[in-house]
Amino acid sequence: MTESEGKSTPLRVGVVLFPGFQALDVFGPLDCINVLSWSHNVTMALLSSTLEPVTTKPPAFANAMGQSVVPTHTFATAPSLDLLLVPGGLGTRGSSPAIEEAISYIKNVYPQLKYLVTVCTGSGLAARAGILDGKCATTNKMAWAEITALAVNVDWVPRARWVVDGNIWTSSGVSAGIDVILAWIEKVYGSEVARKISNSIEYTRHEDPSHDPFAGLHGL
Amino acid sequence: MTESEGKSTPLRVGVVLFPGFQALDVFGPLDCINVLSWSHNVTMALLSSTLEPVTTKPPAFANAMGQSVVPTHTFATAPSLDLLLVPGGLGTRGSSPAIEEAISYIKNVYPQLKYLVTVCTGSGLAARAGILDGKCATTNKMAWAEITALAVNVDWVPRARWVVDGNIWTSSGVSAGIDVILAWIEKVYGSEVARKISNSIEYTRHEDPSHDPFAGLHGL
Repeated sequence: MTESEGKSTPLRVGVVLFPGFQALDVFGPLDCINVLSWSHNVTMALLSSTLEPVTTKPPAFANAMGQSVVPTHTFATAPSLDLLLVPGGLGTRGSSPAIEEAISYIKNVYPQLKYLVTVCTGSGLAARAGILDGKCATTNKMAWAEITALAVNVDWVPRARWVVDGNIWTSSGVSAGIDVILAWIEKVYGSEVARKISNSIEYTRHEDPSHDPFAGLHGL
Repeated sequence: MTESEGKSTPLRVGVVLFPGFQALDVFGPLDCINVLSWSHNVTMALLSSTLEPVTTKPPAFANAMGQSVVPTHTFATAPSLDLLLVPGGLGTRGSSPAIEEAISYIKNVYPQLKYLVTVCTGSGLAARAGILDGKCATTNKMAWAEITALAVNVDWVPRARWVVDGNIWTSSGVSAGIDVILAWIEKVYGSEVARKISNSIEYTRHEDPSHDPFAGLHGL
């Protein structure tokens, strides 16, 4: 998809939601795509196992705060997509029906996607779906040992803000989702579109994918 | 409120929502406060004119994408708060009932707050509520002329990531909300708590409130 195509052909974006997703993993990238939609043709589907609002509150943290977001489709009724965004968060852990359905959906839909973008421990869901096997990928550095143990056949890159392998873009923790989506927008829509969006949200991008001051904090 | 108080006495946070709020204005700061709530006592109220889900889609942009967030209270049923967060976005413009109710709420509740934090053009709502008169404040630099014209008795600071005047913290555009809330957390809970949160979300803070590469882009 080129920029000129993007103004007429819609970019069809989907987002995987589950209880305990990390708010900024979703709304960093989506804010950029929302701004993109002011000038380009974009459709968006917020996907979950049911149509009930999905909370960011981690299931295991009784006293934690969360906000609830309304899905537009279930995994079963999801429309065709070009780009699927998979966030992370404490809710990626375990084997609840919501998480197992998310992993099944990622596994089944991946062959039809043009692009998959994961943020933070969202790469753990992609890893459990088996689609990172044989590929380079990264994840949150604080959760490094836990996430990388989920899939031993992935070439996990310890020092990276984000990693691109084929059509899979995996990013480091939480706020790295803003950098990976702006890098993706730059590739697909061009540097001028990415520059306008980052200026619009007054965000100073990390443009070097190997920039990672957080790897060292965790001995990586 | 000190850090030791914050572990027992709850921090009572409220967020003003209205159609066309900017997603990252809300979820940048709230992600930080969500993480704070994993170790500290926090309550949160998402406030709107009704209990219907509130979309980020700008009212005047027919083709724009948006996501819908579920309020927990109306302005009329809002609990007592310590901190009120006021986001910006294209939806701050105009005089819809939802915006007029938000402005009235901000005006009426301000005397009972410990802190008010605005992000981006959220300072325009605070300005219209009259509570910035005689104070220093900042706003989004792309919307500078429009927002500063709303209140001529405000000492608008053109080059600032954020500005503190008394108990009012106003920040620049969109992503600046992450920096202002981390600066606020540092002041109230201490630098170690702020450092842990920024590391947890892998965010490299702008710690100098006068850091503003975006002012120059708009001739300020």
